[in-house]
Order: sequence, then C-alpha cells, then structure tokens
Amino acid sequence: MTGTTLDDYTDRYAQRMRGMTASEIRALFAVTARPEVVSLAGGAPFVAALPLDAVGEMMAKLGGEQGATTLQYSGGQGDLALRERICEVMALSGIDASTGASPDDVVVTVGGQQALDLVSRVFLDPGDVVLAEGPSYVGALGVFQAAQADVVHVPIDDDGLIPAALAEALETVARAGKRAKFLYTVPNYHNPGGVTLSSERRDEILAIAERARLLVIEDDPYGLLGFSGEPMPALRARHRDGVLYVSTFSKTFAPGLRVGWVLAPHAVREKLVIASEAQILCPSMFAQTAIATYFATMPWKEQVKTFRQIYQERRDALLSALTEQMPAGTRWTRPDGGFYVWLTLPDGLHSKEMLPRAIAARVAYVPGTGFYADGTGGSHLRLSYCFPTPERIREGVRRLAGVIEKETLVRAEFGTAAAPAPSRVTWTHATHLGPAAGQAPAPGLE
Amino acid sequence: MTGTTLDDYTDRYAQRMRGMTASEIRALFAVTARPEVVSLAGGAPFVAALPLDAVGEMMAKLGGEQGATTLQYSGGQGDLALRERICEVMALSGIDASTGASPDDVVVTVGGQQALDLVSRVFLDPGDVVLAEGPSYVGALGVFQAAQADVVHVPIDDDGLIPAALAEALETVARAGKRAKFLYTVPNYHNPGGVTLSSERRDEILAIAERARLLVIEDDPYGLLGFSGEPMPALRARHRDGVLYVSTFSKTFAPGLRVGWVLAPHAVREKLVIASEAQILCPSMFAQTAIATYFATMPWKEQVKTFRQIYQERRDALLSALTEQMPAGTRWTRPDGGFYVWLTLPDGLHSKEMLPRAIAARVAYVPGTGFYADGTGGSHLRLSYCFPTPERIREGVRRLAGVIEKETLVRAEFGTAAAPAPSRVTWTHATHLGPAAGQAPAPGLE
Repeated sequence: MTGTTLDDYTDRYAQRMRGMTASEIRALFAVTARPEVVSLAGGAPFVAALPLDAVGEMMAKLGGEQGATTLQYSGGQGDLALRERICEVMALSGIDASTGASPDDVVVTVGGQQALDLVSRVFLDPGDVVLAEGPSYVGALGVFQAAQADVVHVPIDDDGLIPAALAEALETVARAGKRAKFLYTVPNYHNPGGVTLSSERRDEILAIAERARLLVIEDDPYGLLGFSGEPMPALRARHRDGVLYVSTFSKTFAPGLRVGWVLAPHAVREKLVIASEAQILCPSMFAQTAIATYFATMPWKEQVKTFRQIYQERRDALLSALTEQMPAGTRWTRPDGGFYVWLTLPDGLHSKEMLPRAIAARVAYVPGTGFYADGTGGSHLRLSYCFPTPERIREGVRRLAGVIEKETLVRAEFGTAAAPAPSRVTWTHATHLGPAAGQAPAPGLE
Repeated sequence: MTGTTLDDYTDRYAQRMRGMTASEIRALFAVTARPEVVSLAGGAPFVAALPLDAVGEMMAKLGGEQGATTLQYSGGQGDLALRERICEVMALSGIDASTGASPDDVVVTVGGQQALDLVSRVFLDPGDVVLAEGPSYVGALGVFQAAQADVVHVPIDDDGLIPAALAEALETVARAGKRAKFLYTVPNYHNPGGVTLSSERRDEILAIAERARLLVIEDDPYGLLGFSGEPMPALRARHRDGVLYVSTFSKTFAPGLRVGWVLAPHAVREKLVIASEAQILCPSMFAQTAIATYFATMPWKEQVKTFRQIYQERRDALLSALTEQMPAGTRWTRPDGGFYVWLTLPDGLHSKEMLPRAIAARVAYVPGTGFYADGTGGSHLRLSYCFPTPERIREGVRRLAGVIEKETLVRAEFGTAAAPAPSRVTWTHATHLGPAAGQAPAPGLE
C-alpha cells in the first residue's frame, strides 16, 4: 500500500518535540571517526585499560551458570546486590549510613542519563525553572528541554558554582513569578568546565538551597577520578533530605552496560521507581549482575587508580601542550580530575563557526554553545583528554592552535571570521564522541 | 544536618505523578515468590530452555576480545549490525524491503517498554486520546498514564479488535471534540486477551485508521510464538506509512538484556532517536552485540521452535485443566500462541476482591482490572502458562477452581463475596511476575 495520506506527521507530534531537532553538525562529527582526525571532542572513557580477559571470564559465568537468573526480568528498583555495592561506592564520597544512605533508597537506572530523566519526570512540569551551572552538561540540558523546562544558568569560576550568583538567580526567578524546582549541579571535575566546587562553597550552596526549599540534583560521574587526594565529601554527604545524588558506573567501570543510579529520599525514591517502570519496566539483570560481581570480586579500586593515572598523564599532556602552543588571548581551566578542559578563545572568535575549519585541519572539539540552553557560549569550547594518547593530544593541540591563530589573523585583517558560518549549522551534543564517533550518542540539543 | 524542612516533596512533584502511585497489592504479589504458591500471574519467559553454556561462551568473547567496543558508548539509534538482524526477524512477519522496511528506520530500545514510552513522548500531549484494546497490556497503560493521555478502550472478541467498535470509538472521540493520536494494538496472541486479530480484520482496521488519519502502534512481542502455521502478515506489512511496529527480543531470546525496537517512518524515526538520546543517551552496546551475535551465529529459529513446543504443552495443560476443573459459568479464551489465557468469572465474582483468598489458597493470577485504564475488568482475570511446568499449572488450576467454587457458593448464600475486600487494595501490574516475584517489575498502574 503506497501513496497513503499518512506520510506527514508534523501536525501530530507532541509539543515537547518542537525544540528537539537533529543537528546538521552531526554530519560534521561523523567525520571525526576518521583516524586522521584527532578528536578532543569525545567523552569516551579508556575502557581498553580494563582487565578484559577477566571481565570476559566473568561474563561467561553470568550468561552460562547464572543465565536463568541474569537473562530474566528483574525488579523495577534494581537488584539488591547491586544496590549494596552502590552504597559501598558512595561511602567513598562520605555518603553512608550515618547520613541516612541505604540500599533501599537507591534506584538503578540506564546510565546516569536515565536517572536525570526520571528526576525530571518526577519533578518538572512544562514551564518550571531549573537552575544549572553555565556551562552545564549537554545531556542534562537535553533532558530539561524534553521536560519543557526553562533553564536558568548560574555562572561558575575556578571554584565552581558561585553562591552569590545562585542567590541572585533565585531572586530573579522569584521576581518573575516562576518557580525553580531544583538546582542541577556537577560539583566534581565539572563537565564541561573542568572545575570543582570548593568545600566552603558546598556548605554555602546547601544553605542557600535549604532557605529557598530548592532541591539539589548532584550529578557525580567523575568524583572518584580525582588526581590528588581523597574525594571531597559530596553535597549529599552534608545534607540528608534536600539532595538527590546521581552517578554512574560508566567512568569507574564502563559505559557499555548502561548502569547508573540515583539515591533519593524515601518518598521520592518510590516515585522514581514508578516512573522507571513506566519507562523501561526494569533495568537489565545481566548488566546489573555483571557490575555487582565486578565490584564484589575484582580489584576495582586498583583499576580506578589505573584509570586516574592514565587520565592524569593525558591531562598533563593537554595542559602542557596548551601552554606551549596556544596563541595569546586563549585561556583554559586546569582540572584536578575528570575528563575535560574548558577553553576560552581570543576575543571575537566563535567556536561553533570555527568548527568546520578545525575539522578541515583534522582536529575536533565541542563548541561551547552546546553547554548553554540559550545558545550562548560561542567564545568557549570543550577539550577532552580521556581517550586519545598523549602524543595524539599534543598533535591535536598543535593543529587547533594553528586554526585559532589563523582565525585570529583573518579576523584582525577583515574584522570577521575566516569564512562565513553555514547559515543553519546548529550544535548538538557529542559529549561521548569517541573512537567510533559516527556511532556515538548525540542528544538532540541545539 | 538533620531536621530540615525539605522532607516533604508533595508540593513539588510534577502533575503527571498524581495518578502514578504504588499499589498495596505489590505486597500480596511478593508472596507469590514463595515456592508453595503456584503463580499463574507472571509473564516471565522460560529462559532456562536456552542453550546457556553456548550463551556463556559467547558472552566471554564479547566481554574479553571485543570488550573495548562492547563496553564503550554507542550510537543513540542502536548498532547497525543489530538493526540488520532485526530486519531479518521482521521479514518473517512480512515486514521487509518490499514494504519499505530498512535498518535505517529501526531504533533499538530498552525492551519494548521504552519503545512504547518513546512513541508516547513523540506523539502525546496531556489530554490526547489513545485508543487501545479493552483489555490492554498493562505496561502500555502505564506509559499512557505517565503521558497524561486519556485511554479509550475498544472491545475485542475471539477474532481480536472489533472494527465496528473502532469506528464507533473514533466517532465518539470526535464528537467529544477530542483527538485520538493513535491506536495501540497487540494483534498477535494478545496480552492479556490471548486472541489474535484475523486477517480480514487487519485490512478493515487499517482502512478505518487510514480514513481517520489515525496512526497505528502495532506491538508484537509474541508474533513468532504461534502454535500452528506461519506468522500472519503484520499490520506493518500491509501498510507502509501509517503503522509503527514495536517488538522485543524478550520472548524470542531473553528479557534480561532489555533489548527491543521500533520500526517507524523515516521522519518519525528521527524524532524517536532524539527522544531516546535525551532519555538514555544510547542503548547498551554489550547487550546489542550479544543479541546481534546470537541471532547471526546461533540456531535461533530452532530455539524459537523449542520455546513454542514448551509453551504449547503448557497451554494444553492449562486449557485441559480449565475444562476439567472450572465450575459452570466460567469462560476463557483459547490462545493459539503467546503466554496468556483470559478468563471470565461466574456472574457476581470480582477478580481483584478474590485475589487475597486465591493467594491464601496458594495460587496467583492477575486481576482483570489491571488491564483497563478505568478500573473495570473485575469480572476477568489473566492466567499465564509460560513459566510453570504442566504439573504446576494443573495444580494451580485445581486450587483456583476451588477458590471460585467457594466464592460462588458464599455469594449464592449471602449475596456478596466471601469476605470484604481490603478497603484500599488497588491493583498494579505484575505482568512479568515470575519465579522471583518480589523482584519483578510492577509498573505503577492502578
């Protein structure tokens, strides 16, 4: 049956889909999968450093001996054995029984992303305000957009979210007659900012939030990947009721099993489970058992140490290359953990407009515009050091420095960028773009 | 920091959460996990029949040799190798290249549940009408409730959805000034009805839908699990543009990896990918590779034949036990595939009110009220024959017949049910309740 009248769906989409369109920049990013391009865009962890033979042996048992259980449906909240391991992991950030953390209040999710989506489903009506760092994690912005929420950015500096700016944002929102439902924050090794919220500020932020009855969504994928000293106590470790803590095994183990979690006050936890069941029925029992087994039986803390050493070496390579290569007027943050450096371009340059020329020069980054709900951020870009080798990182920075220099020269000469930007190039997410970028996730955030 | 003012969240939940509450009947169902209870409630496939040793060997390679890929992020649409296998599976139901099916229009999801949720996100605004069979799959009703849609049930008989009733429902909705966004239907071996839509009716339903510009969401988890003959051509095989086809590997392989899919017209597929990225970033690459490998290298069609034989034997056991044991006035459907029998109680009995007494008699079923958005359906219940052995099925029916007989007698004597129902027992989903019922998913549908 061809030639029907049903080929046009535009009058039937839900309103929430209006802002959610695919980006033409995806095509550009497919190019970054080519081996000749140095991608500093991706947030793919270096999973090849895992003890893959041992992981394979573990998987054999899970699919064989334990197959009748691991291949079956499981509960919507997540497997208890895994929730117990999750509590052990959180204890390293000060979130333990003494602050009321319990396996019973953990909900297992499909990566941290589903955790953010569930929290949004439970709390956000269209038109609600979400406060978030500016810049903020692009995947979270996609969730908030799907929830038809309005994001109000709160600026950060080298010590993370600025408390006075948060207080001011709350006042502005209240004056506008709107309601801020929660603050979304990545306190440790911020994506994309690379900065960490100082201990003093943690207490200040929590005090402000408590006064305003503002929930805090603490997203902490990188907390155990610090390069110096022990993890700082999490916001949730300091405040029992007002903080929902979200994290993931994507960076401490691997992202390919898609397992994350949220720790929530009991009443909220119940809502999250109901929302998750309506969304995915239950998380994968196989994936949950794999991670519970890995964290119960294998030297996972040693492995995290290995990851930290690899990432620290790459961070060092990136920072020293930036210092050596970057033209005057370029600035960047100095992360003490995690995956990202946030770079500010010389005056007048625009990271999104420059991207096609960077890719032509065989280097890729994520333009800063992706990390702001309002499309600002063009004077910034995000560089990732998690996946490429130090040598490739140095080569990538050399190429990028050349592009910026040329762009600056042309701009000085002609008062504009080197070439007109494609008229409708809009930015979408490539946070996790890694070795197989054509395959990589790209939440539809413009 | 204790004794905060932030322990009550009721004034901050999103409106969609109002109807989504946990059911007290969950506690009852936890009891069905006890070995002494025969559960005819669960929809858990009999995964122990899989060649688990071979699956284990396959998993070892996926986690070991291929770990650097399978444990990494992947694309939001899903892995191409898996989407190709999905097209081979769909071809068995007549959905092939000649009807425009292509791997490019497939989106891989976290089980069929996420597929239904994505479709709802893309199409449903609050207040939109969804047409669905009455009774309908409880997990789908949970999705539509979360989308704040109004479900209008269309009755079924032994040949499935009744075309005249669909036309009438469309008129009623139009007269009310409402808009039906889509018809949700399970044409093959209906859950919970057990019936299959006849070939003639398939064409009639599609003609009605096309005239009304009504999208059809065809949910087909059981299509390859028929007990006689080849699968009937799917609705999607007969109509290229107006049908979105949803299915899952949960019944042809196993549910524990949580992999399903949706095949959609190209423009819609793009929206689904964007919505999925905002929800889960990407599906598990490990799970996708496992299923793609299983379907590419192992005798999966033979395995499906094994499943069919097991389920047919159990269906036979259930039907013959019902014929032998059930008191007069009890009726039931005779499924030619799938997992479920839909039973109608003698006049005056109520399946939800009777459930506590059935569980006391060590047999469990799903009350019919779970399969109607409006809470009707109390004169029906769903029996599953997929998981228990034939012997256990016969014992379960014997116990259930005793409960119904006693209930009928007491009702004849006192004009009411045997005991007052707990005042606020409300029903929620236990579709997949199987051997580990305390762990089983239970979408929050009242």
